[in-house]
Amino acid sequence: MSLTVVGSIAFDSVRTPFGERERMLGGAAVHFSLAASFFTEVRPVGPVGSDFGASEFEVLERRGVLTDDIEVVESGKSFFWRGRYEYDLNVAHTEDTQLGVFGDFDPKLSAASQEADTVFLANIQPDLQRRVRAQCTRARFSALDSMNLWIDTAKDSLLAAISEVDCVIVNDAEIRQLTGEPNLARGARAVMSHGPRAVVAKQGEYGAALFTNESFFALPGFPLEDVRDPTGAGDSFAGGFLGYLDSHDGEIDDHCLRRAMGYGTVLASFNVEEFGTERVAALTRSEIDERMAALHAMTQFEPLPAPTE
Amino acid sequence: MSLTVVGSIAFDSVRTPFGERERMLGGAAVHFSLAASFFTEVRPVGPVGSDFGASEFEVLERRGVLTDDIEVVESGKSFFWRGRYEYDLNVAHTEDTQLGVFGDFDPKLSAASQEADTVFLANIQPDLQRRVRAQCTRARFSALDSMNLWIDTAKDSLLAAISEVDCVIVNDAEIRQLTGEPNLARGARAVMSHGPRAVVAKQGEYGAALFTNESFFALPGFPLEDVRDPTGAGDSFAGGFLGYLDSHDGEIDDHCLRRAMGYGTVLASFNVEEFGTERVAALTRSEIDERMAALHAMTQFEPLPAPTE
Repeated sequence: MSLTVVGSIAFDSVRTPFGERERMLGGAAVHFSLAASFFTEVRPVGPVGSDFGASEFEVLERRGVLTDDIEVVESGKSFFWRGRYEYDLNVAHTEDTQLGVFGDFDPKLSAASQEADTVFLANIQPDLQRRVRAQCTRARFSALDSMNLWIDTAKDSLLAAISEVDCVIVNDAEIRQLTGEPNLARGARAVMSHGPRAVVAKQGEYGAALFTNESFFALPGFPLEDVRDPTGAGDSFAGGFLGYLDSHDGEIDDHCLRRAMGYGTVLASFNVEEFGTERVAALTRSEIDERMAALHAMTQFEPLPAPTE
Repeated sequence: MSLTVVGSIAFDSVRTPFGERERMLGGAAVHFSLAASFFTEVRPVGPVGSDFGASEFEVLERRGVLTDDIEVVESGKSFFWRGRYEYDLNVAHTEDTQLGVFGDFDPKLSAASQEADTVFLANIQPDLQRRVRAQCTRARFSALDSMNLWIDTAKDSLLAAISEVDCVIVNDAEIRQLTGEPNLARGARAVMSHGPRAVVAKQGEYGAALFTNESFFALPGFPLEDVRDPTGAGDSFAGGFLGYLDSHDGEIDDHCLRRAMGYGTVLASFNVEEFGTERVAALTRSEIDERMAALHAMTQFEPLPAPTE
C-alpha cells in the first residue's frame, strides 16, 4: 500500500510561551508524512527552494519518507510561515507568510505517486487539490483539509474538490463556516451531501469527531500536562489517520475508521509535545502503541454495572 | 439513598435563535433535581418568593422531587434571570439578574435533608455552600459547582469549600481561571491538591472530562441536530451524574464514576432539546437508557483489528 500527500513543505518560525524556534522544518505535507511514516510508504508532493537542504531531506528520509516528488526549484525560496501562540495555545497568530516557490506550483506527480492507494490533499488552493486528485486514478481512499481562506475566496472550487474525495478532515469551525450551519451535526451532514462518506471535525484540545452516514464517533484529545507547540497537530492527526487506513488490508469500515481516529489522536498528541517535527521525528512505534492503549483505557465505560459490582 | 441539593430555584426569561420564553421555571437546583429524580430521592433546598406557585411546585412533584425544604418567603420575589444566546449557543449573555429572596438566604436544612447520602452545592456564594455542607454530616459523596464571579470575589471561601467536597464539577474555563493554569490537566491536578478526589470539567458541546488521581476519562457531548436552549445543561449534567452515584450501592470507584459521566451527558443532552425544564420534565427512564446505550456505541473502539478483519 502507499500514500501520496500534497501540501506545503516549509520553514516555520514559531514562538510559544514555552520557547521559540527560527526556520525549523515544517509544513502540512511534512508533519503529515512523518506521522504517516509509522504505518505505510509515504510520498510528499510539493516544491521547495534552494534553501531546503540535505538536513531537511534527512529528517524525512530517516523516517523512510520517499522524497522523489519533492521538487527543488533552484531559483526560489521555500514556503515560510511565522507565527506565535498565547498561553492558551488554541489560536495561532500569523505574523508572516511567504508563498515562495508555492506561488507557481503546478503539481506533476511521478508514476509512483499517481498509483497511490490513499491520497491526502493538505490545505492548499482547492483547484490544485483537484489537479492532484485527478492524477491519482487508483486511490481507494482520498481525503482533504482546507481553511477559512479558501471558503472565503474559492468556495465553488472547494465544494468541487470536496465532491471528489471520500473524507473531509477540517476544524469544526470550518465546517460551520463552509455550511453556514452553527450546529456541527447538521454541518457535517451538509458536507456529506456533496459526496464524502466521512467527515472528521478536528476540535483542537477537545479531540476530534467522526461523522458518517451510519454513525457518530468521538475521541477526546489525549490529555497532556506539557504542550509546547501546537503547529502541525492537525496534519499529524491526518497522517496517523490516513497512514493507518492505508496500511489496513480489509474493507474501510466503521471499526477501521474509529481505530484510525485513535491513531490520529495519538500522533497529534506527540506532535505538540515538542517544537515542530522534533517529537514525531524521534518517535517509535512502541510509543505509539502504548499511547493508543492508554487512549483506549481513557474512553471506555460500561453502561451497566457488572453483576458482582 | 437520598440526595440534597442547594442552589437557585428561579424564573428564567430566555431568548435563543430558536424561540423565547418569559418567566419559565428554572434555576440550578431545579434543573439538577429534575435530572437526578430519575435515579433517587432528591431534596432541593432554597428560598422562593410568593410568585412561586402551585404550578411550579407541581413540575417538581410530578417527578417525585421532595419540596419540603423549599422555603416560601411570602414578602419576597423569587430569583430571576434574563439571558439570551447567539447562534452558536455556547455563550449566555446575561441581561438581568434579580437575587430576590436569595439575597438574604440563610440555609437551614430539615433533618431529612441533613441525612442525605449525597450532597450537591450548586453555584451559589461559597460561604453558603460551606454552611450547607457542614449540616450534611452523613454524606458519603459531596460535590460543588461554582463560577467566575466567586473566583473573582470570594476565592479564599471557594477554596475552603472545595477542600470540603469529594468532587468539583465546573466549566473547564473556570478550572483555568481558578488555578491560573492554562493547561487543563495541570489545572485539574491543582484543584485536587486542595482535597477533592475527582474533578469534572464541563466543556459545553464538546462534552466533559473526569480527572481523578488514578485516571482520566472523557465523553463527547451527545450529538444533537436540534438544540433549542442550553440553559441548565450543566446542572442537568450534575443531576444525572450525582443522581446515579447516589443510587449506586457499592463503592464509588472508577467504573461507577465513568457510568455517572455517561448519565450526566445524557441528561444534559435532553435538557437542551427544549426550553428550560420542558424536555426533562417530560422524559422517561427508558429514553434515558436508550440514549445511554447510543452514547456508549458512539465512544467505543477496538485498538487492534479482530483476527478475522
